[in-house]
Amino acid sequence: MTGWQHAAGVDALNLQTIYQAEQLIAPHIHCTPVLTSRGINELVGAKLYFKCENLQRTGAFKFRGACHALLQLNSEQRKAGVYTVSSGNHGAALACAGEKLGIPVHVGVPKNAPRVKKQNMQRYHAKITELELGMAARDAFVEEQQQHSREIFIPPYNHPTIIAGQATASLELIKAVPDLNALVAPVGGGGLLAGTCMVGHSQDIPVFGAEPVNVNDAWESLQKGAIQKEKGLKSICDGLLTRLGEYPFEVIQSFVKDILCITEEEIVEAMYLIWQELKVVIEPSSATVLAAVIKHKAQFQKQRIGLIISGGNVDIARLPWHVDKLESPHET
Amino acid sequence: MTGWQHAAGVDALNLQTIYQAEQLIAPHIHCTPVLTSRGINELVGAKLYFKCENLQRTGAFKFRGACHALLQLNSEQRKAGVYTVSSGNHGAALACAGEKLGIPVHVGVPKNAPRVKKQNMQRYHAKITELELGMAARDAFVEEQQQHSREIFIPPYNHPTIIAGQATASLELIKAVPDLNALVAPVGGGGLLAGTCMVGHSQDIPVFGAEPVNVNDAWESLQKGAIQKEKGLKSICDGLLTRLGEYPFEVIQSFVKDILCITEEEIVEAMYLIWQELKVVIEPSSATVLAAVIKHKAQFQKQRIGLIISGGNVDIARLPWHVDKLESPHET
Repeated sequence: MTGWQHAAGVDALNLQTIYQAEQLIAPHIHCTPVLTSRGINELVGAKLYFKCENLQRTGAFKFRGACHALLQLNSEQRKAGVYTVSSGNHGAALACAGEKLGIPVHVGVPKNAPRVKKQNMQRYHAKITELELGMAARDAFVEEQQQHSREIFIPPYNHPTIIAGQATASLELIKAVPDLNALVAPVGGGGLLAGTCMVGHSQDIPVFGAEPVNVNDAWESLQKGAIQKEKGLKSICDGLLTRLGEYPFEVIQSFVKDILCITEEEIVEAMYLIWQELKVVIEPSSATVLAAVIKHKAQFQKQRIGLIISGGNVDIARLPWHVDKLESPHET
Repeated sequence: MTGWQHAAGVDALNLQTIYQAEQLIAPHIHCTPVLTSRGINELVGAKLYFKCENLQRTGAFKFRGACHALLQLNSEQRKAGVYTVSSGNHGAALACAGEKLGIPVHVGVPKNAPRVKKQNMQRYHAKITELELGMAARDAFVEEQQQHSREIFIPPYNHPTIIAGQATASLELIKAVPDLNALVAPVGGGGLLAGTCMVGHSQDIPVFGAEPVNVNDAWESLQKGAIQKEKGLKSICDGLLTRLGEYPFEVIQSFVKDILCITEEEIVEAMYLIWQELKVVIEPSSATVLAAVIKHKAQFQKQRIGLIISGGNVDIARLPWHVDKLESPHET
C-alpha cells in the first residue's frame, strides 16, 4: 500500500496484511493480557478467555488501527497532519499515536461524548472541534475539512488499513490461547468485528458479533443484506452507536457466524460481573460480548471462547449500578 | 525443608529458597501483568510499574504463599488437612490451593470480613468458622485447633515459607522490568513486604513499605525496634489491620529502607486514580503504594519504581467515592 488516500479496497485486506500490521505496530502497542475467571466459567459452563484491550494504550483496541494507519503515511502526509471524527476512543488513539510519531491530529467530537473520553484526547494534545449530535453533523465536518484543509482523513473503522490494525487483537489472542472454538467481538462501526472475522476465518474459528438490541443496526443489516441506518442514542454502549462501515460490512457479511443481540439490562449485568470477577474496569460496549455468551450459553457449553474486551474508558464516578458510599472507619 | 511444622527459622529464607518457590508454584499461579499509565507517570514525575496481583488467582498475592506452603506438605499432612485464620484473601487463597491439590481447608473468619472475601472462600469449598473481632478471638481459635484437631496451621504471613512464596511477585516484577530504582509494597502482617525486601536487597534496590497512618503499627515497630500491637479497625484497608509477624519483622527491620505512612483520604484518591487510569479494580490496601509514592514524590523524581498491587477483592457496589447512577438511555 503506497499512499493512504489511494489504498486498495477490501481486497487489500488479507491475512498477510494483518500479519504485516502486527509486525509494524508491535513496537508501539501493548500486547495486552488474556484474563480468565473461574467464577464466570462456572456460570457459563465454558472456558472464557478475555483479551483485555481496555489495558491497551489509550484504554481501547482503537490504538491498534490508528497506529497502523499513521505508520502508512509518507513524510509529506505526516507534515500535513490528520483528522477524524470520534466520540472518544478512536480520537484518543489517533491523538496518542500522532503525538508519538510527530503527526498533528485534529478530532471532531460530538458534544455528548463521555467526559473521560474527551479528556483522553486532550491529554495527547489533539486539536478538538465540538460537533452537534448525529451523523449529519459528522458528515458536514468531514466535507468542510475535505474542501478547506490539507489534513488527511483517518476514518475510525471504514478502511482496510484500520481493520487490519484492529485484527491484531484477535491474532494475539489466538496465539496466546490455542484451540479456540469461537471468537466474540462487539460491533459498532464494524472495524473490530471485521478484523476478528478475518482472523477467525483463517483458522476456521466461528466469529460472533455482540450488539445491543436497542441499536442493532448491524444485525438488521445482516438480515437485509444492506447497511441499515444507525438507531440513535438508545444504548448505554456509547462506543457502539455509530453506523456500520462499508468495508467492515463486506467482511462481516462474508465471514460472521451470527450477531447476538442483548438488552441493556443484560449488558449492565455482564459489566458488573467483569468488574467484580475479572477485576478490570471496562466500558459498557465491552460487556456486550460476555452478555451475549451468557444469553446464548446453551450453544457454547464446554467450548473455549475468546472474547475481545474492547475498552475501559468509563467515568468511574458514574456507573450503571447502585453504589453505596463506603466511609473510612475514622470518619464514621 | 522436609516437614512443615519443623521448618527452619528465618535463616531458611534466602534468595535460593525464593527461586525454588518460584519454580515450584509456577505451574499453579498466574504470572500477572505489569501495567503502566502515562497519566499517573506525569502526575508523579517518575516511571511507575504496577505488578497486578489483583489479577492473581483468588484476586490477591496471597495465593503465592498459600500454594507454596501446601506444596511443602507430605502425604500424611495433606490428608489431615490445613487450617488458618483470615479476614479473606489468605483464606480464599488457601481454599483455592487446597482444592487444586486435594487438601481439605478450614478457615477461621472474623465476623466483619468483607462479603466478597467470604464468598471467595466459600467458592472453593473451604470449611468456615466465624470468629469474633480482634486478635484474642483469633488466638483462641488457633489454640483450640492445636489442642483438638489434626489439621495443620498455615499462617497467613508469619512463616519463612509463606514469605518466600510472596517474594515471587517482586521476583517476577524485576525480571519483567529491569533497572528499577525502588520497590514499594503494602505492609499489614508483613509477609509481602518481607518478601519484597528479600528480593530488593539481593539486587540493591531500596524497598519501601506503605502503611495507613491510622494503623501504622509497622512503622512504630520499626521506630521502637520491637513489634507493636495492631491498632484496631481504623482504616479502610481491611487487608492491613493485622499485627506484624515476627519472621516478617526480622526481615523488614534488616532490609527495608523506610515505611511511608498515608492518610485515608490519600489512599482513596490513589485508589480512584488506579481504577480510572490503570483500568483495574483494586482493593483499598493496594492503593497505599501509589498514595505513598504520590505523597513522597519529591524523593522519587525521574526514578523507575515497582509497585506491588496486592489485591482486588472489593465489593464494587460499595466504593469509597460518590458514584452517580448512570441510567440506560431507554430508561430515562
